[in-house]
Amino acid sequence: MKRLVIIGADAAGMSAASEARRTAPDLEIVAYDRGGFASYSQCGLPYWIGGVVEERDKLIARSVAAFAEQRIAVRLHHEVTAIDPARGRVRVRDLREDREFATDYDHLLIATGAAPIRPNVSGLDLDGVFALDVMEDAIAIRDYIARHAPRRAVIVGGGYIGLEMAENLVARGLETRIVQRGDQLFGIIDRDMAERINATLARHGVDLDLCDTVVEGCAGTGGRVAHVHTAAGEIPADLVILAVGIMPAVDLAPPAGIHLGATGAIAVDNHQRTNLPEHYAAGDCAEVWHRLLRRPVWAALGTIANKQGRVAGRVIAGGEATYAGIVGTAITRVFDLEVGRVGLTEREAREAGFDPAATTLDSTDRAGYMPHARDLVVKLVAERGSGRLLGGQVLGQGGVAQRIDVLATALYADLTLEALTQLDLEYAPPFNSVYDPLQVAATSLLRKGL
Amino acid sequence: MKRLVIIGADAAGMSAASEARRTAPDLEIVAYDRGGFASYSQCGLPYWIGGVVEERDKLIARSVAAFAEQRIAVRLHHEVTAIDPARGRVRVRDLREDREFATDYDHLLIATGAAPIRPNVSGLDLDGVFALDVMEDAIAIRDYIARHAPRRAVIVGGGYIGLEMAENLVARGLETRIVQRGDQLFGIIDRDMAERINATLARHGVDLDLCDTVVEGCAGTGGRVAHVHTAAGEIPADLVILAVGIMPAVDLAPPAGIHLGATGAIAVDNHQRTNLPEHYAAGDCAEVWHRLLRRPVWAALGTIANKQGRVAGRVIAGGEATYAGIVGTAITRVFDLEVGRVGLTEREAREAGFDPAATTLDSTDRAGYMPHARDLVVKLVAERGSGRLLGGQVLGQGGVAQRIDVLATALYADLTLEALTQLDLEYAPPFNSVYDPLQVAATSLLRKGL
Repeated sequence: MKRLVIIGADAAGMSAASEARRTAPDLEIVAYDRGGFASYSQCGLPYWIGGVVEERDKLIARSVAAFAEQRIAVRLHHEVTAIDPARGRVRVRDLREDREFATDYDHLLIATGAAPIRPNVSGLDLDGVFALDVMEDAIAIRDYIARHAPRRAVIVGGGYIGLEMAENLVARGLETRIVQRGDQLFGIIDRDMAERINATLARHGVDLDLCDTVVEGCAGTGGRVAHVHTAAGEIPADLVILAVGIMPAVDLAPPAGIHLGATGAIAVDNHQRTNLPEHYAAGDCAEVWHRLLRRPVWAALGTIANKQGRVAGRVIAGGEATYAGIVGTAITRVFDLEVGRVGLTEREAREAGFDPAATTLDSTDRAGYMPHARDLVVKLVAERGSGRLLGGQVLGQGGVAQRIDVLATALYADLTLEALTQLDLEYAPPFNSVYDPLQVAATSLLRKGL
Repeated sequence: MKRLVIIGADAAGMSAASEARRTAPDLEIVAYDRGGFASYSQCGLPYWIGGVVEERDKLIARSVAAFAEQRIAVRLHHEVTAIDPARGRVRVRDLREDREFATDYDHLLIATGAAPIRPNVSGLDLDGVFALDVMEDAIAIRDYIARHAPRRAVIVGGGYIGLEMAENLVARGLETRIVQRGDQLFGIIDRDMAERINATLARHGVDLDLCDTVVEGCAGTGGRVAHVHTAAGEIPADLVILAVGIMPAVDLAPPAGIHLGATGAIAVDNHQRTNLPEHYAAGDCAEVWHRLLRRPVWAALGTIANKQGRVAGRVIAGGEATYAGIVGTAITRVFDLEVGRVGLTEREAREAGFDPAATTLDSTDRAGYMPHARDLVVKLVAERGSGRLLGGQVLGQGGVAQRIDVLATALYADLTLEALTQLDLEYAPPFNSVYDPLQVAATSLLRKGL
């Protein structure tokens, strides 16, 4: 009987385990995770911290017991410390028993995810300074709020986690401030669109510092944080969330001879195979094929982790599966503002060597005369000459996911702007205008001349 | 200077006029309409009757004066009574002055729309019996409600108009009953899905009669309706809405030698040309190409009328444009239930000679643990063997338009079920699950084996 060892028991790892079991009923499957939770929604953690999701257990997609019923062994608090590809063996540390052992595998899946970047500044070990990565971090943050009732929060970084934590800390009643290096929030959209987020933050009482310098450190008294230092001065803070970015968790790979790609994540083919036979990687620790850029990128998102895990599980178990890759889709909510992007931004398109044309349209999510019509802003990016759709960014108080998904589907199928105007999209006054705002924007861009 | 005459000044006609003007600044453009309103949202009429849209003027997309500024002449209350293609001349009756005249054209666009079917039964001329087609009908219905304060409404027919009127008459405080021939409402979706609408109607106090016989007539006293007769008996009614279907308004075409297609609507090519040179048709009076059926169909919807009108206007004015056709998209709202379809239903697929496989999935519109998650039901239809996506039906209290539009885009691009599972659709807990319900349904159908 063959044995599959999985390192990391979250989205990618457990998707792989389930799919491998479905494909190969006889495969032995064991997943090790150094944390205390398996198969839960990391993306849901900010909402549990904010109390929007009340019960922690609701974030668990599938329990360890349920996996056991499928004969998938999940070993929590077990950290894999080394891979020996020649022998097909990993070293594992049981963190609770504090003992190490070796175990053999026929197939290995690395699904170690990503980890928050910790800036190299002082004071980050003070009580009240947190990064949000795994369930344990969320528990610690909730616990800290419950015990110390902090009044003023500083979030360092205005990406997904920073923005989602802002919403949820405000929901907890904290005065909240975001300190963001550089001149815009949410760097994965163009600046002209990102600026529209600022007013929403202000309306919900979040202070925003767009500054040229990184945070220089934290300071406090009695071991507990009281200030964040920036070049502009001291900011009082009873709670600090570090959300300056994440890195692929790939420490195990290079010593084992498993190659990283140019992005720093593990290089994989479209079957999730690494350079070593029977060694696979999936999820936030691995690269992913970008269909528009025609090269691997690093994009740490749950959707990708799940899909890559499923492909890996199928292939490992002797089935056939190919991952088609991504088109750069991402979405977040900032209070009542929905913010989505897909494909390439104007800046990304230019950096990738395209000659992009772009247009921005202010519209509504449904017929403008309907009482619940809400503002919707669409930015479309296309290639001059070919008219090929390259990407879109959509912001609004409703209907953003819908337009992002239409664009994601169109980009997957490599449609042109002209095709976008032809799409037979739904319309009734409660849902849309007779031309979807995407089509109005596409027509406008076509009329400008490409 | 060439002269374009347009018969019908609504979605198709005025889209054509605007696009023709944009393409050919010198073209003379005149549109005749027998009604008193041009370029308004017919689809918005039920919501104005219901008071959801408060001001009638909000339904007007563009005023006659605004068209005049573009040098597009709109002649309301002018009915074209005959076409003489050999001379390039139409006969026009000025309905207010009660005089007729002839006028010449170089290009003719027939955009006469559709008209409600009036069953051949007695009592339909009683006060209080209405069909809903044009603005005048909506005004008459509102006026009747205001003057007579009817208490009990009977809607004959449970298609779009019937269902939308039910919602809006209930909003007006009327006891409302739908009488529908046959065993299901909303015949453009499969029965198993349509049955899910019934409970929504019941919850909102709408009585539903699914019966084997048509309505046999209306009766009343003092010239005003008081009853609807059915085979099952008399139903008291102070207001009756006839919504048993519509027909293309094509009376002018056959006498002029303009061919109708097999559907009974005017046959057109993908440039909106009829069989006669310089004679075009667009909108509800014309057929439209169905990309999956690979044949013309009749589908009277505002989205199609606008797109066909734009193509016709461009081509008439000497530009280039081609209409790519439809994929069978439609959506409506029944109180708080959103109901959408796209592509082919299971029944339509079978009737068209496909060997369809189908699956139905009960899901939620976003992460199930989020507090506002709402039920969403997805039915997918695919072709056995090829795995080609054939269609989908989606019902729910939110997020339906989003899934319909993803499917509409996928069907336009002729994607397979497998491709659907690969799409890089957005995900964050407030918006979706990590796999969109469409992808879960597609995976389930693939696993069943095609």
